[in-house]
Amino acid sequence: MQLLDREQIAEALDLGTALTDVEKSFRLYSARRVTAPPVTYLRFDDPPGDCHIKVAHLHGEPIFAIKVANGFYDNPSRGLPSSNGLIVVLSAETGTPLALLQDEGLITDTRTGLAGVVATSLARPDGFGIVGIIGTGIQARLQLEFLHTLRGPVQARVWGRSAPAVEQYLADMRAKGITIGSCNSVRELCAECDTIITTTPSTEALVDSSWVRAGSHITAIGADAEGKQELDTKLFGRAEGVLVDSREQCVDHAEAHYAVQAGIVKPEELVEIGEALEGTAWRNNPAGDITIADLSGLGASDAILAQAILAAVNQ
Amino acid sequence: MQLLDREQIAEALDLGTALTDVEKSFRLYSARRVTAPPVTYLRFDDPPGDCHIKVAHLHGEPIFAIKVANGFYDNPSRGLPSSNGLIVVLSAETGTPLALLQDEGLITDTRTGLAGVVATSLARPDGFGIVGIIGTGIQARLQLEFLHTLRGPVQARVWGRSAPAVEQYLADMRAKGITIGSCNSVRELCAECDTIITTTPSTEALVDSSWVRAGSHITAIGADAEGKQELDTKLFGRAEGVLVDSREQCVDHAEAHYAVQAGIVKPEELVEIGEALEGTAWRNNPAGDITIADLSGLGASDAILAQAILAAVNQ
Repeated sequence: MQLLDREQIAEALDLGTALTDVEKSFRLYSARRVTAPPVTYLRFDDPPGDCHIKVAHLHGEPIFAIKVANGFYDNPSRGLPSSNGLIVVLSAETGTPLALLQDEGLITDTRTGLAGVVATSLARPDGFGIVGIIGTGIQARLQLEFLHTLRGPVQARVWGRSAPAVEQYLADMRAKGITIGSCNSVRELCAECDTIITTTPSTEALVDSSWVRAGSHITAIGADAEGKQELDTKLFGRAEGVLVDSREQCVDHAEAHYAVQAGIVKPEELVEIGEALEGTAWRNNPAGDITIADLSGLGASDAILAQAILAAVNQ
Repeated sequence: MQLLDREQIAEALDLGTALTDVEKSFRLYSARRVTAPPVTYLRFDDPPGDCHIKVAHLHGEPIFAIKVANGFYDNPSRGLPSSNGLIVVLSAETGTPLALLQDEGLITDTRTGLAGVVATSLARPDGFGIVGIIGTGIQARLQLEFLHTLRGPVQARVWGRSAPAVEQYLADMRAKGITIGSCNSVRELCAECDTIITTTPSTEALVDSSWVRAGSHITAIGADAEGKQELDTKLFGRAEGVLVDSREQCVDHAEAHYAVQAGIVKPEELVEIGEALEGTAWRNNPAGDITIADLSGLGASDAILAQAILAAVNQ
């Protein structure tokens, strides 16, 4: 069984190739060419944490992948990162374990960042305008960095709960060449921005529908389990189009979950990103529309990146 | 991250301690003191195989475990064992991966064998009589060996599809001191035996209800996924008592699944082994009754053994 550590994985990760791979994973998933059982979710209460396990086999590929991603929110007070994880790669022909990717969450972080780029680009094909980031954690960073690196220079605003974290975020993003300022409230951020990206582990809506201007797009990253929520459900009532990575997962436990439960949107009205990439189901938002992209994370994206990284290391 | 191979794990496994641990895992599970999300199941068609992932956290314990068990049925023709697997042990306090147990299925095999001993002993407190084994694979071996080693000498019969496999099985079991003969059919085995243990990956009932004598007990090991079945559903209609390791899992995808779907037994009539061990819900079968034990495999048993093995290695 081959062991790869985070450093080897980081070295083998090429962002452009990974973007193409993540897009491909969306297409395969929506074409039902992926075996992907329901996500396994464990919650821990003391100390608070959660574990997501995502498994995927891309049909015809010789491997399948089991991805474990943990978030333990008190870890920073112990001097540990809040995220951790690993990926086990196994033969789809014999079941033999082939490799352990001790990525400590790097592949999950990367594919989530890239999934955001794919979704936000689909909804905003003519440019992002001012990009507003809610949160200051790892996805707050990667969403903005990847948009900037892969889609050209962005102008941005950030809002976060902790003033020192916002200061650090501003300094780090500016060091990467991003033009960015901060907002004093989510309301102010919504007023100033055209594209809003929510990246928090919030358990109640942070973005009030009344604050969001017509013509805005929102990509929601944070809600990945029952009980997490970043968006006012009313936003779904105003949205002309809602993109989801997985209709099944988002209706089960991401933002769309609340809107479907409230009867504001029907599951069949949600458009999977893989369908939108095929150009059949998604029309780009005319001015005046609100669009939402709701991401829950695909095991297919983990599997495709794990396979690419293994191939790169072993070539 | 600590790595243990199969040899180290085998050395650290003490059968008597493991039996106590498996019993404890049943009690904790039925007392709802285990977080155990639904089993993840992947099926592969070409070549045929399946992957079960079981996750469990025993409340209050500092670790949780993710157990992967694969069965690929064409492997023997490639010179590989059909079973494989591993267990990842992680901190329940920080989410940090702690250990990889490359047990190649040893822990799953062992806890399944021991779960059979626990179930069969509950149903047969006054002795097993003649034990009939259906199948000649790993569980056909472990069920009988463990009963013999842990509960005293047994007299046995075996039936298997393949005559050479039956010959090999007889030789191996006799070498362990077990008095055993073979039967020419399942019907003959049912006529001669008091305790029947089914251990095959069959996808249709092997044991016809009309063949089973009053007073018999049957422990069913093989059916661990939708589509697998060893027992005639009618047996559930005759049974005075049905033991299950997990009501939820067995109703979802083990033998009881078919009986519940057919309306022959109600979920609340099934008695969990953990409840029976507490002595509250199970009365031992008087002569004349048929009893059934239906096993689907508990992640809690994997977790408790993984933790014990890690502790033994690190003491």
